[in-house]
Amino acid sequence: MMINKLCIIGVGLIGGSLARALKEKNQCQTIVGTSRNEASLKKAQQLGVIDEYTTNLENAVKQADIIVCATPLGAMPAIFSRLKSVITADTIITDVGSAKASVIEALQQSFGQVPANFVPGHPIAGTENSGVESSFAELFENRKVILTPLETTSARAITKVSEMWQATGADVIEMGIAHHDIVLAATSHLPHVLAYTLVDSLAAMSDNQEVFQYAAGGFRDFTRIASSDPIMWRDICLANADAIVKMIDLFKQNLEQLQDAINQHDSERILKLFENAKQVRDKNLLD
Amino acid sequence: MMINKLCIIGVGLIGGSLARALKEKNQCQTIVGTSRNEASLKKAQQLGVIDEYTTNLENAVKQADIIVCATPLGAMPAIFSRLKSVITADTIITDVGSAKASVIEALQQSFGQVPANFVPGHPIAGTENSGVESSFAELFENRKVILTPLETTSARAITKVSEMWQATGADVIEMGIAHHDIVLAATSHLPHVLAYTLVDSLAAMSDNQEVFQYAAGGFRDFTRIASSDPIMWRDICLANADAIVKMIDLFKQNLEQLQDAINQHDSERILKLFENAKQVRDKNLLD
Repeated sequence: MMINKLCIIGVGLIGGSLARALKEKNQCQTIVGTSRNEASLKKAQQLGVIDEYTTNLENAVKQADIIVCATPLGAMPAIFSRLKSVITADTIITDVGSAKASVIEALQQSFGQVPANFVPGHPIAGTENSGVESSFAELFENRKVILTPLETTSARAITKVSEMWQATGADVIEMGIAHHDIVLAATSHLPHVLAYTLVDSLAAMSDNQEVFQYAAGGFRDFTRIASSDPIMWRDICLANADAIVKMIDLFKQNLEQLQDAINQHDSERILKLFENAKQVRDKNLLD
Repeated sequence: MMINKLCIIGVGLIGGSLARALKEKNQCQTIVGTSRNEASLKKAQQLGVIDEYTTNLENAVKQADIIVCATPLGAMPAIFSRLKSVITADTIITDVGSAKASVIEALQQSFGQVPANFVPGHPIAGTENSGVESSFAELFENRKVILTPLETTSARAITKVSEMWQATGADVIEMGIAHHDIVLAATSHLPHVLAYTLVDSLAAMSDNQEVFQYAAGGFRDFTRIASSDPIMWRDICLANADAIVKMIDLFKQNLEQLQDAINQHDSERILKLFENAKQVRDKNLLD
């Protein structure tokens, strides 16, 4: 048994899927869930995702070997402040936040410095669904989990957190914090911003009721991520604002170039942009 | 048997899927395919999608009851000009183009006026794949096919084309030309423009080789349509340029509002935009 007691703060899609995966691989003696939402915790226990729960954070983390903070980013600063007084020097903590500089900043504010046993992490996995009822054990299989440890992070803590994720079937890699935040702004945060904006744009059309009737499979695929949890995504936008604003600028420049080419009926320029995109996508992605 | 001889000009994803569906439902005595690409026609015959083929358009359409023009929009004007001298007064013609005003314009230029037996059509169905090898008989099942007939269009021709599409399992509806072009600019053309632009934007990043490694399922879904046929989509952008340029303007306005909210860390405004999008999408789309 790898972990004696695992505490998951926030048992939703990610926290719940982690619990399910570790249970299935028999990696934990006990999994305790905690959050402010008792109904959700109760459901998680009923579904067999967690063994125990309490809405009392301080009780939940007692004697935990590993604490996983799987809440939206906005909830983390308050949680870190409360953890400070209750964790022991041995307790390993990690998180799953989609922007890492903001987590580091929150840790510095709560702890004075980033604890050596805190391993910032981010599983590159998810669906547009949220809540423990959407969780499943296979979510992390063959997916990447990025860890962004500092130079001061304990090697033992990194190893423990890596092994935990590897047990779920994930491929664990390390990356610098700033680099992580830019790469994720490009590949995840910007697409979510665009999908939300597209749906908002169509909803603002006078005949919006009718418009959505003619949405085909491509539109459904394209906007699927606009069904993601709005609070989680608001928090990501606030936490990684600088990188996201920059990526929006880059996107707007490219969009304006294409709009200009369409406006000028510049057949060759349009074709070149589309051919380049198709070639890059087909080369880099499998489906 | 509903159709004695069906002629499909351009046997790709759409033309091939139509042929497969009608064959499966035993609706055609003979299906003849034609295009400039003999290798593709040969493949279509080998796959059993069409019965015969010829690269000679004039021979292909001889004695056809229905001619379906399933080429990219840019190829249609030249085809219409050649059809003019060979079709009889009884021949019914339809097309599958994603922008209808440009088809009407091309017909007016070739025929002087839109022939009474021409029924402008557009099946709201497709995948990111192209070519006859991607075609399948179920593509149109429970999908909408929009017809945009004029006041001068023959009722018999509309009925025949409607019945043909209904036989594939599609739901046939009628709509005005300008309205069609705006609705499709919003639900299909704009999303394709955005997906192509996103991939181009990421490809322009200095570390683009690495960036795509961290693309998760959401990114793959979001950009799937950027693997669509560049020529077909260039033609759509040229054919429906005005509506697409307007939709890009609308989208840019909304994107700038969100960017501004992110830049100002306006938590409430961001949340409101995301919540609205999620609510609208969840209400209007099933998955």
